[in-house]
Amino acid sequence: MKNTLKMLSICVLVLMASCKESTSKESEVHIDNPVEEASDIDRIEPPHWWTGFKNSKLQLLVKHPNIGSATPEISHSGVTLVKFHKADSPNYLFLDLEISETANAEKFNIRFKLDDDSELIQTYELKSREISAEDYVGFDSSDAIYLITPDRFANANPENDEVEGLLQQGIDRTHGYARHGGDLQGITEHLDYIDDLGFTAVWPCPVLINDMPSGSYHGYAMTDFYKVDPRFGTLDEYKKLADELRNRDMKLIMDQVANHCGLEHWWMKDLPFKDWVNYQDYYLENIDNWNRETTKMSNHRRTTNQDPYAAKMDNDGMSQGWFVPDMPDLNQRNPFMANYIIQNSIWWVETLGLGGIRQDTYPYPDKAFMSDWAGAIMTEYPNFSIVGEEWSYNPLLIAYWQEGHENKDGYDSNLKSSMDFAMQKHIIDALNEEESWDKGLVKMYEGLANDFAYTSPKDIMAFLDNHDKSRVYTELKGDAVNTKIALSYLLMLPRIPQIYYGTEILMDDFDNPGDHGLIRTDFPGGWEGDKVNAFTGEGLSAEQKDMQSYLKKILNYRKTSEAIHEGETKHFAPFMGTYFLYRTKGDETVVHIINKNNKPIEIDLKYHEEMGLKGKTLKNIISGETMTWGDSIKLNEKGSLILTTKL
Amino acid sequence: MKNTLKMLSICVLVLMASCKESTSKESEVHIDNPVEEASDIDRIEPPHWWTGFKNSKLQLLVKHPNIGSATPEISHSGVTLVKFHKADSPNYLFLDLEISETANAEKFNIRFKLDDDSELIQTYELKSREISAEDYVGFDSSDAIYLITPDRFANANPENDEVEGLLQQGIDRTHGYARHGGDLQGITEHLDYIDDLGFTAVWPCPVLINDMPSGSYHGYAMTDFYKVDPRFGTLDEYKKLADELRNRDMKLIMDQVANHCGLEHWWMKDLPFKDWVNYQDYYLENIDNWNRETTKMSNHRRTTNQDPYAAKMDNDGMSQGWFVPDMPDLNQRNPFMANYIIQNSIWWVETLGLGGIRQDTYPYPDKAFMSDWAGAIMTEYPNFSIVGEEWSYNPLLIAYWQEGHENKDGYDSNLKSSMDFAMQKHIIDALNEEESWDKGLVKMYEGLANDFAYTSPKDIMAFLDNHDKSRVYTELKGDAVNTKIALSYLLMLPRIPQIYYGTEILMDDFDNPGDHGLIRTDFPGGWEGDKVNAFTGEGLSAEQKDMQSYLKKILNYRKTSEAIHEGETKHFAPFMGTYFLYRTKGDETVVHIINKNNKPIEIDLKYHEEMGLKGKTLKNIISGETMTWGDSIKLNEKGSLILTTKL
Repeated sequence: MKNTLKMLSICVLVLMASCKESTSKESEVHIDNPVEEASDIDRIEPPHWWTGFKNSKLQLLVKHPNIGSATPEISHSGVTLVKFHKADSPNYLFLDLEISETANAEKFNIRFKLDDDSELIQTYELKSREISAEDYVGFDSSDAIYLITPDRFANANPENDEVEGLLQQGIDRTHGYARHGGDLQGITEHLDYIDDLGFTAVWPCPVLINDMPSGSYHGYAMTDFYKVDPRFGTLDEYKKLADELRNRDMKLIMDQVANHCGLEHWWMKDLPFKDWVNYQDYYLENIDNWNRETTKMSNHRRTTNQDPYAAKMDNDGMSQGWFVPDMPDLNQRNPFMANYIIQNSIWWVETLGLGGIRQDTYPYPDKAFMSDWAGAIMTEYPNFSIVGEEWSYNPLLIAYWQEGHENKDGYDSNLKSSMDFAMQKHIIDALNEEESWDKGLVKMYEGLANDFAYTSPKDIMAFLDNHDKSRVYTELKGDAVNTKIALSYLLMLPRIPQIYYGTEILMDDFDNPGDHGLIRTDFPGGWEGDKVNAFTGEGLSAEQKDMQSYLKKILNYRKTSEAIHEGETKHFAPFMGTYFLYRTKGDETVVHIINKNNKPIEIDLKYHEEMGLKGKTLKNIISGETMTWGDSIKLNEKGSLILTTKL
Repeated sequence: MKNTLKMLSICVLVLMASCKESTSKESEVHIDNPVEEASDIDRIEPPHWWTGFKNSKLQLLVKHPNIGSATPEISHSGVTLVKFHKADSPNYLFLDLEISETANAEKFNIRFKLDDDSELIQTYELKSREISAEDYVGFDSSDAIYLITPDRFANANPENDEVEGLLQQGIDRTHGYARHGGDLQGITEHLDYIDDLGFTAVWPCPVLINDMPSGSYHGYAMTDFYKVDPRFGTLDEYKKLADELRNRDMKLIMDQVANHCGLEHWWMKDLPFKDWVNYQDYYLENIDNWNRETTKMSNHRRTTNQDPYAAKMDNDGMSQGWFVPDMPDLNQRNPFMANYIIQNSIWWVETLGLGGIRQDTYPYPDKAFMSDWAGAIMTEYPNFSIVGEEWSYNPLLIAYWQEGHENKDGYDSNLKSSMDFAMQKHIIDALNEEESWDKGLVKMYEGLANDFAYTSPKDIMAFLDNHDKSRVYTELKGDAVNTKIALSYLLMLPRIPQIYYGTEILMDDFDNPGDHGLIRTDFPGGWEGDKVNAFTGEGLSAEQKDMQSYLKKILNYRKTSEAIHEGETKHFAPFMGTYFLYRTKGDETVVHIINKNNKPIEIDLKYHEEMGLKGKTLKNIISGETMTWGDSIKLNEKGSLILTTKL
């Protein structure tokens, strides 16, 4: 692995032959004349860039018929064209630029001299950065994240439900896998609701264009990494969402995909290099008959990433195989692809002023690249956060992916946050199982004990469900009390909690548990004419309202609770169907008590003396009632009891 | 934890005030006169010691009526009485001796001056060491260990079945929890059998005296840490077993217990210190009514050892609570107890010339002490091996306990070998489950992948069952083919394999799965008059004979296979109910193929090209047949196929 990392670094770091020349010009005062703007080139990416990054390099992808034979020239103070690269396709050119500290943030022209002495001119813009690097503060354990499937949350603009020219047309709210019309404006218009509930961050599933013939609603098959799907809205609407969140001191998390694109991605018709996507030859051979049978699919054996004994064939099959037949697997070992993805991520952080990235299918792309990718972003934004999705119940893997873990293969991910699928399973099992020596609450207790192996437990993202998993209310067999226990426990943990939209109103997938279409059901009230409106409460059942109110109280308490954000954690081994968890910082102690008994039970608190609460007054954060911590505590019914010393 | 470690170290390291004095005498030539031997003292432990250890300190426990008020004196060249300590009981004295490099290995007298000017004299012996420290070579991955419950293996000497004066009398072979009469001589007399099978090490469960009113057969409730249970034999018979094993180049592993003693241990009637055992006050208060209800039992919440959030009450409850009501929990935080246990272990290594220690209930004693204990032994015997029993299916814990693992709490166990309960479960599950995406063979495959997290996988002990677990043949529902697969896989792994006696003849516990008495069934042929004799094969079923022969062939191949002992490991993701594992060193490649299909299947070997076997001749180590590694391989029936390039 170390060798691979090293090789990739060498590839990515393009030699900067003219670096000195550029530096020697720094002392000259130079004012460029305003350029005469031109736009002769079909496509140039990133579409613009900024001055003032720590990394002074920029690699432009230029696409235009036969541009490969052109000679590019740049004459702009502080910008040096260090090198340019032909691709395998004649219609691409890659330009390595060095942007010095003195470069002016303005437009300049790139000239492409052709064989016939004619010239193409493309204006390119360097912008100045609006937010300082340190102020891109990523999500952390003080946040609570609301995860949204944008197509299914709220349709504020029916005008964009259908967009001419796209491969998939029509909306059909009766079909789980069709488009339903939700959009960015729908999220923006309901930020009051999300904010009031007590969430501090929003993670919408991807909203970049998926111009695919089917299934485009989910967003994970991108066909242009620089374009918002017009059915979700415009780039300005995406920026507006970001701005409005920032104004509320809330964070926007972008869902990015480095592993694959959609089969209809624009470059699939004219791939720049022979190795731009994995199994590219195979794809081109079978292009007319492309389906599940002809795809070189990933073997999905994710442990090959760590397994010291994995066969090379399996390792390649895992990371180079396609995730599904309509998602070509990007080859991040191609250094131009590597640069492309890193720059794309930074472009979006800078454009939206993001408060975090969620990276899809983390174990599938080239592992060495993912470390470089996360490292490059964190270098530019030292206070940022990235969370990677590894769907594994094995705590060894959760530990492995988090930066700073002492991996025996030397791998350091640069990834601040991994995902806690293990904890999700522990909580569900704990509540579904009858109590016994090794079943029930002990699953949560021993699951949390595994934190000893994590570099930074509070930077791990925990959840009860998400867009890929059966709804927690369904997993808990429709038991609302257990759902409350699960949610309150989640929100007390030394973790970054994430809750999926609709969990607050007990949305379910009982009709076909685990079905993606059903998990991503429309949020009631998001569409005009909806009979039930969860935003206003109209038509909700008493149980749904109760859950909304319950969650609101906990989330709003949590918002300012340093004990929960960064306090010490202490918990006691489950006893007679009860389980006590304490979070403490300074004067604030929050006590979370689970009682799984259906009848009243009294617990002797002598055993808990070390917590030093005796005689103190504590408030129930749900009912507001106060009580004195005495010699014992009576738990009257099944459920969670959350007490705080902060009155 | 670090503080605890430090404090303990300070306590254990007794200040050596007179050290300089002793050193200054080194240059003098001094010949002690032969002592006039005396034995006035009731008990002195260790009963003798040796010269030439790296650790020059020795702490003697002296027990005698009112010895606490005596002043001890030693006059022997190279031996300094540095300090002596009174205990809380007047009947104990602890002597700190410094044994210099020049000390003669001989007997000398210790004089105890009493208040009335009278004197007690006790002769003590320092022996010279017979084997050099480096030659105590512990078990490793080149070994295969045969685990025996001595009471149930072979009764070679019916004379010692009942011993007058002991609390439990009688033998009853019809009762699973009674004594059956097996003994050390029974093991010694059947070493040919064990050796021929291909085992290279023997681990008998404890044979030290358990003078307990019931359940004494299992050996884990010791009532004297320096005495062999006379029903198992004499110290000389134990030594004979060790010698005969050494003569065969086989290893003897001793099963030791640092966590507890038996309730009838001699010191329980007169405990030296107020904190000699944990919850001692509580014990003394309830001594007349001692049972499960009155015991301060361990909460058995073993994760408190690692859990950063564990309550102190739970942590104390785990390590200080008694394992069961008739096993007092030794307090290793008492430095005299700590010394006692460490010296006892070393005494047995030296007395028997051991090839390893298996330490019982590893997570139960004081954790800091266990690191000191293992460290002290490994300092004296650098090539030795110790394996600790942590009964957990959590690989995080297996990793935690192995020396050198980068634990975030700074703990280093000094323990070469932890136990792989996780792998045991993976193998059983893999074979019992129907094949599917995430079930069946993938459990073994992904379980082995976890090796990425272990400091030294090949030093971990793996097994399919033991004296506490249901027999593998029972766990595999009486499927002899699956049992063969499990065994052959176990023996191919980069591990130290351990097999429980009787597995070679498919011993089972179907009548009451998991019942300890039943798991530890008598080995047929071990008792005179047994109708079935597994040593000779008489009366065994064809299936039993087949398993014996199968295991014998694999074990005997394994004995000299460097590829298995220390070769590289490579395995391929399970495919169509098959799973290939390769071990390679130099020219030797061993291929282990599992086929779970009940009908013939042909596997394309193109995928395995990287193994470089094409065109090579391989031999089936069971049938002896050879074959050429071609483009595909046909697997005719369910089972394991083991091929080697060593013809």
